[in-house]
Order: sequence, then structure tokens, then C-alpha cells
Amino acid sequence: MDALKEKIHAVGRVLSEDVLKVDSFLNHQIDPLLMKQVGEEFANRFSDEVITKVLTIESSGIAPSTFLGLTIGAPVVFARKKKSLTLTNNTYTSQVYSFTKQETNDISVSRDFLSADDNVIIIDDFLANGEAVKGLVDIVNQSGAHLVGVGIVIEKGFQQGGKILREQGLRIESLARIKSLKDGKVEFFEEGEF
Amino acid sequence: MDALKEKIHAVGRVLSEDVLKVDSFLNHQIDPLLMKQVGEEFANRFSDEVITKVLTIESSGIAPSTFLGLTIGAPVVFARKKKSLTLTNNTYTSQVYSFTKQETNDISVSRDFLSADDNVIIIDDFLANGEAVKGLVDIVNQSGAHLVGVGIVIEKGFQQGGKILREQGLRIESLARIKSLKDGKVEFFEEGEF
Repeated sequence: MDALKEKIHAVGRVLSEDVLKVDSFLNHQIDPLLMKQVGEEFANRFSDEVITKVLTIESSGIAPSTFLGLTIGAPVVFARKKKSLTLTNNTYTSQVYSFTKQETNDISVSRDFLSADDNVIIIDDFLANGEAVKGLVDIVNQSGAHLVGVGIVIEKGFQQGGKILREQGLRIESLARIKSLKDGKVEFFEEGEF
Repeated sequence: MDALKEKIHAVGRVLSEDVLKVDSFLNHQIDPLLMKQVGEEFANRFSDEVITKVLTIESSGIAPSTFLGLTIGAPVVFARKKKSLTLTNNTYTSQVYSFTKQETNDISVSRDFLSADDNVIIIDDFLANGEAVKGLVDIVNQSGAHLVGVGIVIEKGFQQGGKILREQGLRIESLARIKSLKDGKVEFFEEGEF
């Protein structure tokens, strides 16, 4: 997705060979117009599927997911990273290890909002080691819903998450796939290049 | 805002005289079309102001804020509830006590995304005791930015937050102001009724 790659080149900050910071439009400050374009591009990529629910995880997945949901006319559910007192025990729960935060969080989704009748797409901001997506897939499996595929805004293609998940037969659509962050520069895979 | 009040009547669940659960369209599952209408209504209410930044707090404030930002052409910044390792010390920080979760969280915003040049609107999903808004106002004050006002999706008008903040001279626009949750029923204030 050209507009996204251009934005990453323009304002993304390479902090190391592993870390790309895109706090200025995705992870802390949000560019609403770009998020609308991202949501519409997900809808376009999965236009061959009937989707009844968009599943994401707080917080950075919410903006692109909401525009996808608006485009296809489906509600969005965001998994919570910690149980609050107003979430009852009526939840699907999984565990996600965050390499960034170096901690394991429970993620949970109320059983009220995901069921065996649903066709679900999972959306997340980043795909690196694949931990968050694995937790969301686990929740979809617990619910008995059908998983259509996974939409990722930025995939770190030099890490293992995408490879592992694709080998499991999951359809993963990443709008920007990073080949390398070496020498402080962002290099993308071409479309279709693996 | 009629569409919002109708939605609350239709699917909001009164758990006690203090607690209204709207997890089915705002706090866990998101209704994208209603969030678009909410964002556009905030833009309409503050159409007399020039706004350069929408400030909210993760996670439920993000969807309505993003539609507001899209409508007025301004970026959205969401305060984080806990510092992550990729947020540096370059932050404005305040403390927010959550009565729902019975815990105090640091909230923080990077200095990169809020400055004395900004005209800021604060958006949040609920206003009850006003703790979250007070923390966000503190952060705006630290930055030296001008605070235009506060937009709230649902105000619990029978709690003290709105009264206290209005007495401080803040402009608060709430799209649904609840008068009472007694007898399991949601009763709203009329427009202009206090």
C-alpha cells in the first residue's frame, strides 16, 4: 500500500535493526485519513469474503479496524489486555507475551460478542513474532467462529511471526512488509516477494 | 444526540444505580457507524473553534476521536495508561484513579505530539467522577496548549465530575447526559437541563 509505505519512509523512525517507531501516525498519535485508507484497503483485500466481525486488540488496532468495520458494515470487537471489574467471567481468554513490554498479558473477549456463527477477520497494527495474532486466533478457535484471515498494517518480514502463521495455513495480508531495518533505513518487500 | 440515546435505551444494560454497561457498541464491541455519527456530532458542537489536536485516552475514546479527527482534519493523540519500553522519558505524565478498576494508573503523552501551539479538544467515552478528564487537562496544561473544551459520549449526570469541571470554567459537551439509572431504567436530562 503506497500511501502507507510513503508515510513510513517520511516519519517512521528506525531505532535499531529490530525496532521501527511509528508513534506519529499509528501507535500514539493517529493519522485519521491514513487509517481510513488502511481500513478500506483491508476491505478491498478481503472483498471475496463475507465478514461478520472484525477482531482486534487494544489499542493501536482500533482505528484501522473501525474504518474496516464501517466499510464492510460489521461491528468491531477489541480484545482487552487485562480483565476489568466490569468484565464478568463470561470471557474467552488467552495469553500474549509482549517482547516490547517484556511481560505476559491475559487478553480476553466477552462471549457475548463472538460465536460459532461468526466469520471473523483479525486486524493488528504490527506483526513481528506473531504472539498477539496467536492469542487472537486462540480466542477465535475457542468461540468456534470461522477465521477468514488476518490483516496487518506493518509486518516485520525479517521476524518469524508471518512465516509461522502462514505455514499454519492462515491467510495473512500485510499492507507494508519490511524486509530490513539495517543501516537505519526501511526496506520493503515488493508485493508477492517472500 | 438522539441516535446515541436510542442505542443506549435499546442495548445499554443497567447493572446498578451507578453502572451502565455499553459494551455492545462503545467499550468492547464498537458500532462503527454510530461512532462516525458521534465523531461528526462533536465536530458540529465545536464548529466555532479551530482545533489542531484531538486528545483522548486508550481505549474506548479512540474510535469516536478518530472520526472527529477525520472530520476536522486534525490528528488524534491517545494517552497511554502505562508507560511502555518504547515510550521514552520525553512525556507529560499525570495520575488517574479508576473507580471501576479500583487502581491508579499513570497516563502519559509524548512531548512530540502536544505543544504550546496546539488548540486541543479532549474526548472521552464516559464522564462520571471526572478523574480521567482531570488527568488529561493536567497534561494539556503541562504542554502549554490551549484547551478548547471537552467532548463526552455519555455523562453520568448524577455523579459529580461534570459539575466540578464546569465550575472550573471548562466547556463540556456531552452527547447523552444520564439523569438517573434508578429501577433499572435509563433516564436522560433534556438538552439544556441541569
